[in-house]
Amino acid sequence: MKFTCSQSDLNSNLSLVNRAVPSRPTNPILANVLMVADEEAQKINLTAFDTTLGIRTSFNAEVLEDGSLTLPAKLLSDIVSRLPEGEITLVTHDNENNQEDIQIDLTSASGQFQIRGISATEYPPLPTVEDGEKIVLPVAALLEGLRGSAFAASADETKQILSGVHFKTEEESGLEFAATDGHRLSVVKANLEDPDSENSLPPSLSVTIPAKALRELEKMLGSLQPTDTINLSFDESQIVFDFGSRRLTSRILEGAYPAYQQLVPRQFSRQVTVDRKRLISSLELVAVLADQKNNIVKFSVDRDRGQLLLSVEAQDIGKAKQAMPAEVIGDSIDIAFNIKYLMDGLKALSTADIKMQLNEWNQPVIFTPLGGLQMTYLVMPVQIRS
Amino acid sequence: MKFTCSQSDLNSNLSLVNRAVPSRPTNPILANVLMVADEEAQKINLTAFDTTLGIRTSFNAEVLEDGSLTLPAKLLSDIVSRLPEGEITLVTHDNENNQEDIQIDLTSASGQFQIRGISATEYPPLPTVEDGEKIVLPVAALLEGLRGSAFAASADETKQILSGVHFKTEEESGLEFAATDGHRLSVVKANLEDPDSENSLPPSLSVTIPAKALRELEKMLGSLQPTDTINLSFDESQIVFDFGSRRLTSRILEGAYPAYQQLVPRQFSRQVTVDRKRLISSLELVAVLADQKNNIVKFSVDRDRGQLLLSVEAQDIGKAKQAMPAEVIGDSIDIAFNIKYLMDGLKALSTADIKMQLNEWNQPVIFTPLGGLQMTYLVMPVQIRS
Repeated sequence: MKFTCSQSDLNSNLSLVNRAVPSRPTNPILANVLMVADEEAQKINLTAFDTTLGIRTSFNAEVLEDGSLTLPAKLLSDIVSRLPEGEITLVTHDNENNQEDIQIDLTSASGQFQIRGISATEYPPLPTVEDGEKIVLPVAALLEGLRGSAFAASADETKQILSGVHFKTEEESGLEFAATDGHRLSVVKANLEDPDSENSLPPSLSVTIPAKALRELEKMLGSLQPTDTINLSFDESQIVFDFGSRRLTSRILEGAYPAYQQLVPRQFSRQVTVDRKRLISSLELVAVLADQKNNIVKFSVDRDRGQLLLSVEAQDIGKAKQAMPAEVIGDSIDIAFNIKYLMDGLKALSTADIKMQLNEWNQPVIFTPLGGLQMTYLVMPVQIRS
Repeated sequence: MKFTCSQSDLNSNLSLVNRAVPSRPTNPILANVLMVADEEAQKINLTAFDTTLGIRTSFNAEVLEDGSLTLPAKLLSDIVSRLPEGEITLVTHDNENNQEDIQIDLTSASGQFQIRGISATEYPPLPTVEDGEKIVLPVAALLEGLRGSAFAASADETKQILSGVHFKTEEESGLEFAATDGHRLSVVKANLEDPDSENSLPPSLSVTIPAKALRELEKMLGSLQPTDTINLSFDESQIVFDFGSRRLTSRILEGAYPAYQQLVPRQFSRQVTVDRKRLISSLELVAVLADQKNNIVKFSVDRDRGQLLLSVEAQDIGKAKQAMPAEVIGDSIDIAFNIKYLMDGLKALSTADIKMQLNEWNQPVIFTPLGGLQMTYLVMPVQIRS
């Protein structure tokens, strides 16, 4: 293998695939990145795979000699990121006496590195989807769905299906993204303005993808144009996201996803409209005291004053109160929440004003944006001693 | 106690004294900040003290009622830093039935906090220096001395005197700052252009101050003008730095400081001049491989090529080489260093070019800036197998 490329191309593509390099690999070769030089295409392909998530990327290079090998991902990235801008040349040194002893010379203007690699033949192949279904989605819709849902999935991977985001097609509503960790639920309906992409949705789509893999997908999508499209293909066990020179593969989580639609109340006796940023900053303030104890905030909705009062009490330490104007429909009520769950949802709702709809103090509450995104965030209130 | 002040004044002064709040206080009251409202002066004084380092600061406020109390430093700071800009009012609530039960109401435009405090009478007094010696120093000289020396002190407080910076007056050279952790030594001669301040130096000054306290002093000095002056007063056990409305006190370390001047060679058989930034970035590059193993870099000084070659070898992983132009006087030589020690000193030397002076591979090497700061950084080389 022999090629010359720019430091910035190699650096940015290494950072990208590094997200799929496991920090504690079960198989030592997974700590390496697979590098394939394609002389015909004049391209370098990089691959990393942690057995759930796989990322492949390619970039242009002046390839003088085909070849492949794997190199320690972190070490290579640490070196390349510190090199000055300019050309880098990589050449393998095969040891004729020992096929397993592979070294590369990495040469830049200021000096040279010699790094020991492992043969590419030992690297596991990235999963593929041969006969699965296919969908084309605009980047904007996918990003909107992920940003509005993935945060609500469980961070605990032993929670299996709850650690994923559920993608589902509905005859009426197009594509829906949902995530829940058992304490809160977030549902986003994708905005598929292009009728073609809606028609292309298979009516039966219903897969749950690990949120961890989707967070990496979200970062990768951030560099694309909102109108670019992503090709999804999936079978029972794998999903592949293809976009130009890049690809992300993920395992699909097994099991039936909870019937979350049943959890969302259809009717509400109360509605409170408030300024979202003001609510977030007030919650951040009172959270200082809540953190000391139980992380609970009390909402006192006051119809007569047109006011929402947040209050927190930390025994032996102190109390906090913050008030803000609110448009209230229905009777006044006191209701309490876990601040962390509230904050996560309020940060994902992207509009200036938001609507909180509720019934009684012990029944689920939903938060929705006023205009824009079609998102529903459901939180269960907590009990407080009066 | 009752006063009104601006959020930004209270916030910046709390951040300042917080540096002297111990993270694990031996006495629980030291986790609090002492707050004194002075109606006559229309000022608020804040004090924090970790038994070694003490910081006091004052700022203007509309004081309606004298008083003092202590409040949980971290909690108060967390609240005030999150409040919007504007006025804040603090009022104490004394409980007539229980003198120990002190609460304050902190009120801002958006709401109110109630925080429980502890009586100010329990807070230990900040050490003072009554009959000690006094010096006046310009901020620029003190900052130059601290920046060039404090990093070389031992971070291990059990190393006693080596965890401090030694301040010393010399008849010829004015004021000198020195720090060593046993592996390297840094000495800075203060630039006292103002003859008055030189004359004011007591000929016998010789104190060692904990580097940790001096790092906080360095941060506080950063906000002053270089030509501002600092009043130092010290006795056998304490030193006080006074500057306008702020004061820092520190314990003085006991014991004789090592006779470091004897360690610095007077004559050298070799001299190498290089670009400092280029040397730092090359060391950062080869350090990627050195970190894997022993943190050692080899310098190959080549007189004929006019070159300095840095090289590192990490067994089973790889090798790195970086070359740069160098002006060499004396014979070529190979010599090795611990990269960390080199880097610390090179970052503190502030000129574009630096001079490395040495004798043999096993004798101390000194690094000095070309022009500007009068600083000497001494490092012991390490042995490498050839």
